Amino acid sequence: MSKPPPNSPKQRKRKPLLAPEAYLKGIREGDRVLLGQAITLVESHKPDHSERAREVVEACLPYSGRSIRLGITGSPGVGKSTFIEALGMYLIEKGHKVAVLAIDPSSKQSKGSILGDKTRMTRLSADPNAFIRPSPAGESLGGVARKTRETILLCEAAGYDVVIVETVGVGQSETAVHSMVDFFLLLLLPGAGDELQGIKRGIVEMADLLAVNKADGDRVSLAKEAQRSYRNALHLFPSKESGWNPPVCLCAALQSEGIPEIWEEVQKFQATTTQSGYFQQHRQEQAKYWLLEFIQEKLAQLFFENPAVKEQWTEVEHKVVSGEWSSIKGGEVLLKFLSL
Amino acid sequence: MSKPPPNSPKQRKRKPLLAPEAYLKGIREGDRVLLGQAITLVESHKPDHSERAREVVEACLPYSGRSIRLGITGSPGVGKSTFIEALGMYLIEKGHKVAVLAIDPSSKQSKGSILGDKTRMTRLSADPNAFIRPSPAGESLGGVARKTRETILLCEAAGYDVVIVETVGVGQSETAVHSMVDFFLLLLLPGAGDELQGIKRGIVEMADLLAVNKADGDRVSLAKEAQRSYRNALHLFPSKESGWNPPVCLCAALQSEGIPEIWEEVQKFQATTTQSGYFQQHRQEQAKYWLLEFIQEKLAQLFFENPAVKEQWTEVEHKVVSGEWSSIKGGEVLLKFLSL
Repeated sequence: MSKPPPNSPKQRKRKPLLAPEAYLKGIREGDRVLLGQAITLVESHKPDHSERAREVVEACLPYSGRSIRLGITGSPGVGKSTFIEALGMYLIEKGHKVAVLAIDPSSKQSKGSILGDKTRMTRLSADPNAFIRPSPAGESLGGVARKTRETILLCEAAGYDVVIVETVGVGQSETAVHSMVDFFLLLLLPGAGDELQGIKRGIVEMADLLAVNKADGDRVSLAKEAQRSYRNALHLFPSKESGWNPPVCLCAALQSEGIPEIWEEVQKFQATTTQSGYFQQHRQEQAKYWLLEFIQEKLAQLFFENPAVKEQWTEVEHKVVSGEWSSIKGGEVLLKFLSL
Repeated sequence: MSKPPPNSPKQRKRKPLLAPEAYLKGIREGDRVLLGQAITLVESHKPDHSERAREVVEACLPYSGRSIRLGITGSPGVGKSTFIEALGMYLIEKGHKVAVLAIDPSSKQSKGSILGDKTRMTRLSADPNAFIRPSPAGESLGGVARKTRETILLCEAAGYDVVIVETVGVGQSETAVHSMVDFFLLLLLPGAGDELQGIKRGIVEMADLLAVNKADGDRVSLAKEAQRSYRNALHLFPSKESGWNPPVCLCAALQSEGIPEIWEEVQKFQATTTQSGYFQQHRQEQAKYWLLEFIQEKLAQLFFENPAVKEQWTEVEHKVVSGEWSSIKGGEVLLKFLSL
């Protein structure tokens, strides 16, 4: 192996780990390089990295929580990046610091297909008050979700008071995002009749706000039609635990139109639910959910990393799938290898 | 404690367990009492019962699998019992043996709110070729689901060649049922405009057949309208992995109208998917799913039954929910009690 050139990723990875306090200090002082390194630790699979990551997250915990966490989803082509750029720049002008994270389990292959290319948000990524981080690559949804949740805490400790979590609107990832954000925004395209196409109804049910994007020029009347039709559809849904009735807004992210109105709704939501106690209660339920998720993830990991389980898995799975064994027998045979 | 009167449930429970072969013999010979007792073992929480249940299920396994497994769901009031009675009687006339099971996690309180009252299916429950079993009470969804799946295997070994699993169309239980049946039928009410009300879109997406019930008298035109509107809605859904296009049928279960046509669709589905290989492949995927579910359930059980975890849980949960600890720290503290 040849020696890597100076400043190559390889060499940077060899850097010794800093003390947890050093990461905390850097993060609190707004050092984006240290914040990025701490997130890399969170994303790492190396045991010493995980251990240090845990310490850094613990150290940041007292400074976390002071942001509004926004989930943003929508089908490919709906203009998510443009919308996030417009919203982000608007918020920065208002004095906020904005972090943008992504959940995209499919990035296993593409190594970060969404947000991977920062040039998609040119103004935002160049702004000192914005921090953009692509989805961790090569992860299961559970892994991506947990790591993103820890990254939120680090960003909050770094003073980002609006944290946006982006996801592609096509799978299970919305449920994961929903379990870590305060407010969930669904972006839609104008278009009559088939508005619901491609968007799972479960996602519409989760949304705290629906925004019909690209409502400009010739598309204004189409967008208004979509708005009406979504408003009608929302009437059919059961009312939300938060007591909040999701509005359907129009916007044209490319022209930055409709953004202030959407932000106003987010603030109204925050004010109402803070007063009712739902905001805090929802976060507490999320914390409990993540405790259980973490335990489940770790138990599964301990199980599947057990050498005997590893060795026997394929054979047992075959016996169960072929119907020779019941799933219970298969499970019990494997579980006996654990000395619990 | 006073001595229980003869034949009381208490006394019956004291009966010694039979050998696995005795249960198998009885089940294979169509002894419904022994089948019922074997199912009670499957539902029991006592360790010796669970152990014996596992042996009985294993013994039955070679004789299982030879049925069509139907899931039936629909909102309360849609006429599920009447439909199942009509379908069941029709199938028995055609020479089939029909088992009807239920998944209803809410029966925790009601001790079996659906199927609990066999008088709801008077003809079917009196028929020697039908076997009706209410949902196991006092169980989590995971528990109900696993036990129902094992009960399917026992019923198949007893020669029931149509197994119907009923569920209330209001929650997560449809996913569980979907993971154990070959064909999923959604019952709907006639009614214009609001047809989708109350039925989660996810459930519509799972369905292999939609049946608009109570399509009689004055309601025929309403039912036809609902049929049209559901047919249109189904066009918006992505095509199914099975290659099957779910039909929308009309029926009037009380008058036994439309039942043969629905059964014809079920048979068409079975023929097509058996030929394409999907039928068998789907069952294999289900077996794998249940293996993983069982392992996950048992791991969680081992964790939560650990005495140290039990003792510390409330305190750790409080620390995590209050934000003092991260969910990771909380999880790690608890996981250390396991000597894995």
